[in-house]
Amino acid sequence: MKVVLIIADGMADVPLKELNTKTPLEAAKKPSLNRVAELGICGMIDVIAPGIPPGSDTAHLALLGYDVMEVYTGRGALEAIGSEIDILPNDLAFRCNFATVDEEFKVLDRRAGRIENDDAAKLTVAIEESLRADPPQVSGVLFRNTVQHRAILRLSGPNLSIMVSDTDPHKTGVKVSDARPLEGSREAKNTADILNKLTHQFHEALKNHPVNRKRKKKGLLPANMILCRGVGQLPEIDPLALLYGIRPAAIAAMPLVKGVCKTAGMRLISVPEATGTYETDVIAKARAAVSALQSYDFVLVHVKATDLASHDGKPEKKIEMIEKVDALAGHIIKNVDMDETFIVVTADHTTSSIKRAHSGEPVPVAIMGHGVRTDDVKEFGERACAKGGLGRIRGQDLMPILVNLLGKAEMAGS
Amino acid sequence: MKVVLIIADGMADVPLKELNTKTPLEAAKKPSLNRVAELGICGMIDVIAPGIPPGSDTAHLALLGYDVMEVYTGRGALEAIGSEIDILPNDLAFRCNFATVDEEFKVLDRRAGRIENDDAAKLTVAIEESLRADPPQVSGVLFRNTVQHRAILRLSGPNLSIMVSDTDPHKTGVKVSDARPLEGSREAKNTADILNKLTHQFHEALKNHPVNRKRKKKGLLPANMILCRGVGQLPEIDPLALLYGIRPAAIAAMPLVKGVCKTAGMRLISVPEATGTYETDVIAKARAAVSALQSYDFVLVHVKATDLASHDGKPEKKIEMIEKVDALAGHIIKNVDMDETFIVVTADHTTSSIKRAHSGEPVPVAIMGHGVRTDDVKEFGERACAKGGLGRIRGQDLMPILVNLLGKAEMAGS
Repeated sequence: MKVVLIIADGMADVPLKELNTKTPLEAAKKPSLNRVAELGICGMIDVIAPGIPPGSDTAHLALLGYDVMEVYTGRGALEAIGSEIDILPNDLAFRCNFATVDEEFKVLDRRAGRIENDDAAKLTVAIEESLRADPPQVSGVLFRNTVQHRAILRLSGPNLSIMVSDTDPHKTGVKVSDARPLEGSREAKNTADILNKLTHQFHEALKNHPVNRKRKKKGLLPANMILCRGVGQLPEIDPLALLYGIRPAAIAAMPLVKGVCKTAGMRLISVPEATGTYETDVIAKARAAVSALQSYDFVLVHVKATDLASHDGKPEKKIEMIEKVDALAGHIIKNVDMDETFIVVTADHTTSSIKRAHSGEPVPVAIMGHGVRTDDVKEFGERACAKGGLGRIRGQDLMPILVNLLGKAEMAGS
Repeated sequence: MKVVLIIADGMADVPLKELNTKTPLEAAKKPSLNRVAELGICGMIDVIAPGIPPGSDTAHLALLGYDVMEVYTGRGALEAIGSEIDILPNDLAFRCNFATVDEEFKVLDRRAGRIENDDAAKLTVAIEESLRADPPQVSGVLFRNTVQHRAILRLSGPNLSIMVSDTDPHKTGVKVSDARPLEGSREAKNTADILNKLTHQFHEALKNHPVNRKRKKKGLLPANMILCRGVGQLPEIDPLALLYGIRPAAIAAMPLVKGVCKTAGMRLISVPEATGTYETDVIAKARAAVSALQSYDFVLVHVKATDLASHDGKPEKKIEMIEKVDALAGHIIKNVDMDETFIVVTADHTTSSIKRAHSGEPVPVAIMGHGVRTDDVKEFGERACAKGGLGRIRGQDLMPILVNLLGKAEMAGS
């Protein structure tokens, strides 16, 4: 037996006036998702705990069976890993933004006008040169731009601590924050000192750079600052293969989700047509999932675009993306041996199109496959699944439930 | 107020093709169980946790309110206690089998052809003599046969540890396993050494025994080896009387369940007609439960036969056994004062007739009695009870719920 776990990012929502008090999921045409609900067992998942809005990183860790409260230290390291930057157990990784500040370090734009990859790459070279000329007191430092204004800063070595605050003030019109130690340790103080020194060093390396002079001439915002946030270390977790005796693979475009899956020891299958945007090719993803089942018995397929639409406050776009998820599920159902495969559909969190933010309501889940205890639910939706036979479970419960269906659960006792 | 808790071992199951996608419980005629569901409140219990297949020992510990992860060390001591072998807090107890091996200790039959009690008793005398003549380096050793090929080995004294592997290889065609220490301690090493020495000593005591010579002549397998497994110590648990202020009794035939109940301080009521087999006399059990209610206010009645049928992969037999459980419940309902009694029906775990093994799906529960908040459920079944008013609870939650119904729950706070 095998499992395909489809996770649509932020797919769950709340009833919206503009949709006649339906949620986007309830309003969407979704024959395949409904089929999973009708032929399967449904329920609601508190991915972290009731009322807690999960991040995409913690949500995926929880849905993969890990105790987030115990293992999660921050997003930085997971995103770095997903961006193919190597992170070792004691490294610190920060998520960074190229940003625009004035002479007094007041933040004018946290994303430097969403600077393009090319410009960011050239500015990164200048930062690297500066770090070589005047390295911080650590055993290793790496700065790398990823997509547009995004970048990763990695610090290696002794005397470092994640107990340090962001330099990113998370809003414009205020000054770049001083990094502050969040505990009394020497390591936290040292890390804050290093970050604060780097803030000035980054500015010096960037402010008069030819790229920025050219940007100003073109009327673009200069990228003259690096803001750091979301420090994290690698979670110390055992791989899924070891925990559950499964061979797991993941299909995802978003670096953060890729990072979680890679850290959990899942084989990442890259699908170039899957972009994590509204234009993502879900059928390419579905095809990749179907062929992955030849070598792997647990295949996670992640779709990001549903979440984007809710952050953008576009319920109609969200419906469109949910219908893409439905097409993805339909392609998989049509092309796998349903006597041998469990199809599981859920979301990593609710994203409220009202709040335009992650929200703490539970997410629906449906599990279809041979020997599953079915229920009366005929529709895949937030309110329909709340009447399902699974009841209300926690994110961390999902993996043991799936592993039990696979016949690989270890008995507690005898 | 009093409680009768009926636990049918492994009664829950999954939908089966041969029963038109009903479970055995759904397919059975069970007017009395349905009555408990209809007049009571229903729900689903994750006996240990979602997706985790419970053993019968851990399941009963959890349903009696104990934290299995904290108190359980292994089956041996519980089974020994249930077989009326005294176990003290620091004793180790192993479950043993009389087995058949060849000259090279390759296991030919793990149960020595399911040797009869008489032969096992005679061979046990030889083992006892050998242990007296050449005792292991412990302060006490006891070997006792129980039923057929089953036996218990108890080791007492200092320098012992449960961190030791089985000598039972759990399959035929391979050699008897060496006991290995599972941690670096001196105690674990010592325990493994003792077991390995006993393996040879047992073989010497048994191989040329007149009983075995006679068995060979009759074409029966000789019982020339003792295999040890499932080492355990007594869980350190407070008795139910102390924890909940109740007077508890239990009616069970299976040594393991008797052991759990005894360890929990329950008075064991023996019913000779209750055999733990397909032929068990459930009405004798029901009569015993009814009279036990005169002296005890919490009476657990355990029926084993439902589980046997699922391990044997016989859904029709399982239906028949469930109908016996129904008759048992019916007799109790008819003969107790229902104004004074709560009737509770559940299973200790799901046993899947497909896997022929314990499985991690939750089990249904129904509670009938004066003042219970009823729901719409009219049938006692896995899918019907999932719609019940209790929702989805944990095994450990059941006792506090029942103790509250009894009016004996202590307020948290004031």
